[in-house]
Amino acid sequence: MKEPLRITVTGAAGQIGYAMLFRIASGEMLGVDQPVTLQLLEIPQAMNALDGVVMELQDCAFPLLQRVVSTSRPEEAFSGADFVLLVGARPRGPGMERKDLLEANGAIFTGQGKAINDHASKNVRVLVVGNPANTNCLITLQNARDLQPEQFSSMTILDHNRAVAQLAGKTGVHVDAVHDLAVWGNHSSTMFPELLSAKVGSTPALELVDFEWYRDKFIPAVQQRGAEIIRARGSSSAASAANAAIQHMRLWSLGTTTVTSMGTVSCGEYDITEGIVYSFPVTCRAGKIDIDTSRKLDDFCVERLRLTEKELLEERDAIKHLL
Amino acid sequence: MKEPLRITVTGAAGQIGYAMLFRIASGEMLGVDQPVTLQLLEIPQAMNALDGVVMELQDCAFPLLQRVVSTSRPEEAFSGADFVLLVGARPRGPGMERKDLLEANGAIFTGQGKAINDHASKNVRVLVVGNPANTNCLITLQNARDLQPEQFSSMTILDHNRAVAQLAGKTGVHVDAVHDLAVWGNHSSTMFPELLSAKVGSTPALELVDFEWYRDKFIPAVQQRGAEIIRARGSSSAASAANAAIQHMRLWSLGTTTVTSMGTVSCGEYDITEGIVYSFPVTCRAGKIDIDTSRKLDDFCVERLRLTEKELLEERDAIKHLL
Repeated sequence: MKEPLRITVTGAAGQIGYAMLFRIASGEMLGVDQPVTLQLLEIPQAMNALDGVVMELQDCAFPLLQRVVSTSRPEEAFSGADFVLLVGARPRGPGMERKDLLEANGAIFTGQGKAINDHASKNVRVLVVGNPANTNCLITLQNARDLQPEQFSSMTILDHNRAVAQLAGKTGVHVDAVHDLAVWGNHSSTMFPELLSAKVGSTPALELVDFEWYRDKFIPAVQQRGAEIIRARGSSSAASAANAAIQHMRLWSLGTTTVTSMGTVSCGEYDITEGIVYSFPVTCRAGKIDIDTSRKLDDFCVERLRLTEKELLEERDAIKHLL
Repeated sequence: MKEPLRITVTGAAGQIGYAMLFRIASGEMLGVDQPVTLQLLEIPQAMNALDGVVMELQDCAFPLLQRVVSTSRPEEAFSGADFVLLVGARPRGPGMERKDLLEANGAIFTGQGKAINDHASKNVRVLVVGNPANTNCLITLQNARDLQPEQFSSMTILDHNRAVAQLAGKTGVHVDAVHDLAVWGNHSSTMFPELLSAKVGSTPALELVDFEWYRDKFIPAVQQRGAEIIRARGSSSAASAANAAIQHMRLWSLGTTTVTSMGTVSCGEYDITEGIVYSFPVTCRAGKIDIDTSRKLDDFCVERLRLTEKELLEERDAIKHLL
């Protein structure tokens, strides 16, 4: 039997955590031959709820689950962690401006970056799910000075999957037939789900849908999908977000067979400002995220890439005292 | 690629449904090579929420998920179903007596039994999760006149897992080391988690724990675990119940490697009244549930078996006009 790997989840008693932990413990993230230890972090006020979640994890008698640690101390939660999923974040409260939100989360992710730096495995991989995810990821990696920026990523696979589903629905195919789509930039309403390189089967997507649908229906539908689900369900999209986080970690760890989308630190690819965390088309191999640098972009794409980059630069400016 | 199998889930927008559907769609129930179609039933008032769940399922771009049907019409939900998970049930409301609860659910499961009989696959397997699960299962199978009683089962694997976890915790072993435990009778506070045959590693459990702990701590802890989780989480144990339902169907369909516990119609095994749905120690092979009839029981066990049987007979009497 393999040695257990340690997986830290923050905000573990929240809705996304609840939708995620049982799937991680059953082997969906790292494979059904990989024992895991779960290290769950919550704020002190949520420790009671977290106790209930831990009881339920016990009550599943998962063969792969070796141990569950629940704590409100970051140094304990991140201790020796091989994988970290930063799910917990401060949601936007009434009357809170975007800047206030960035600031409130900045404080959380500054502390978590330092704690990961000091306590996690030197080979840790960190996924930021909590919003604003790209900038929270930037703060985290900047505060983990002994680790490499490549060890940090932010989640856009949910947006990627949403885009795949929209295109599959429009063209009447199974999601499996959609390839080479990508979501660029910030996980926000400026994100750019790009179809120029996308294929449906072996046919370029833009030969199957018209440009107006792409620009005026598809892109806004993907950008606003989260709000649409809240309207229907009455609560936010926890299970699909949890699913995306599990998929992100699985692909990062075990490798991709096709292009997907992940937020990763820019080294100037596609002229995106170096050092910001930006979603690119990527593949993963041997535990590394590789940006697909082979894409041809037209003027429409470039304009959209710039727009979402601009928002990320503004976010960076707003929290630059934390970097 | 295999032909898709049709899986019906009732109460699909509820908490257990929400914790279950994404795992079914990812292949955790029937295997990662088995495409599935989900047929989701809800009451009309919950169709909006169910729409949100369907959107989220789409947004996972699951390779195995071929189609999702959402409906409030039982005949559509059960159409051609290979597996049915009856999760939706009327919860006990303020001032409701046990008899009222049985009656309210009786009406639901009478209708669903008839609809399954008329519309599902002739080889359908039906798991009842919604409480009171054993008696709801009895009503369902009695109203599905063209199907065999063996095609219906009620869920006690959650209780089984809870018992395994308690014994593993007490004896300081991993849950994997616990074998041959069984939960008998009704899924209620009379259920009997039995340790007489249970082993920890190769040692009989009752050589490792004393009888007072077994009778006065272990049995009540398993019986009241649901309430304990509600106290901690502030809501009921949805994810562990969903996990148990998935496990029940997987074992039923793909086979067991060790003894587990399931509610199944009694043919007089262990002198339990013929025809009631009672939880026994079971194994599964080739899609069939086989009651383990080899157990030796002592007077303590027999007394407990009778007690929970008595409750099931009272429940049957309360709804006998529906059979």
